[in-house]
Formats: sequence, structure tokens, C-alpha cells
Amino acid sequence: MEQYQLDGIFQALADPTRRAVVGRLGRGPASVGELAAPFDMALPSFMKHIRMLEESGLIRTNKTGRVRTCEIDRLRLAAVDSWLAEQRAIWEGRTDRLEQFVTQDKERKK
Amino acid sequence: MEQYQLDGIFQALADPTRRAVVGRLGRGPASVGELAAPFDMALPSFMKHIRMLEESGLIRTNKTGRVRTCEIDRLRLAAVDSWLAEQRAIWEGRTDRLEQFVTQDKERKK
Repeated sequence: MEQYQLDGIFQALADPTRRAVVGRLGRGPASVGELAAPFDMALPSFMKHIRMLEESGLIRTNKTGRVRTCEIDRLRLAAVDSWLAEQRAIWEGRTDRLEQFVTQDKERKK
Repeated sequence: MEQYQLDGIFQALADPTRRAVVGRLGRGPASVGELAAPFDMALPSFMKHIRMLEESGLIRTNKTGRVRTCEIDRLRLAAVDSWLAEQRAIWEGRTDRLEQFVTQDKERKK
């Protein structure tokens, strides 16, 4: 995953409406109308959120007749997972070294 | 974790410099000078990134004399983990239901 893609994904997730849309799409595809229903928001404003999610690659949309259907791309969300896993690996590496140091220190003092 | 805090955390992570700082701090605390060294960036620009990370709560900073030391707050990063875990739970619930449906359908056809 390129860095600039990760920028767009994190940016897209930095908003409660967009996170709610991602949550809803986790349960299956939905039309823009269904997605917009729970929000007290004008449709053009809501469409901006949909477009931002689409640009980040987190969702794909497809228009059939007058209905635009959205679905999630789990691989993009998995990119956030991978980034977090990297951070955990760094952190755990550090904890391991600290533990090693403390254990060695105890051994020395015996 | 409040929604607005999650907004700030995702916003803070939507930049490669800030993600690199978070990665570096995963290995242990560091001064602003050490953190800035790998980047070809004027210090005031770099400080904007540090302040944004601090405002999101992802890092804490502490000034002693002329040196500002930064350290990571793992709990804030864990908030992203929790949000992703929620999404996975929604998704897996859906997969379970799909699997159930397919299994029941097969049973019916026997």
C-alpha cells in the first residue's frame, strides 16, 4: 500500500458520518438513499462524503438506472490493520528488549 | 473513546511525516530535534506536525530546559484498533449469516 493511499484512507476515516457509512457497508451493499437516511443532512453534503470514501478506495459505487449502490473494499481497511500491526511489532520489539534488559540485570545481581 | 477524539486521531495519522513520527516514538521517547532529523523540513513546519499529534492525544510532549521530549500514548492508538475490531465484528457477523444461509440452503437441497 502506497503512503499516499494510506493518507486518503485515514483522511476518509477522520469523520463520524464517513465512519458510520463504512460501518453500515460492513453489513452489506446499500444504495446512497439507504445510507443517507439516518443522517439529518442535505443530499449534496452527503454525496461529498460518499465521493471522499470512493476516492480513498474504501468504497466502490455503481450506478444502475437512478440508483447508486455502494459496497466496501475490505482490502483498503486491511491497510489500516497492516499499519497498526507494524506499530505493534515496533512496540513489542521494544518491550522485548526492555524485558531482556531487566532479566539480564536480575541475573547479574544474583 | 468519543467520536471527536477518533476524528482527531485519524486526521493526525493522515500524513506520512506524522505516521513516521508515531513509528519512531514506538521505539521510545525522543526529542523534537531527533524526530526532525530524518526530514528535509523547516523546524516550524515540523512543529506543526508535532502539535497536531499532541492535540490528537497520540503523543505527549514535555519541555525540560531547551529540549522538548515526545512520547507516544499507546491508548490513543488502541482506539483505532478498537474501531477496526468493531468493523471486523460487523463483517464477521455478516459472513457468519451468509455461511449459515449457504449451509441451510445445502441442507434443504439434500
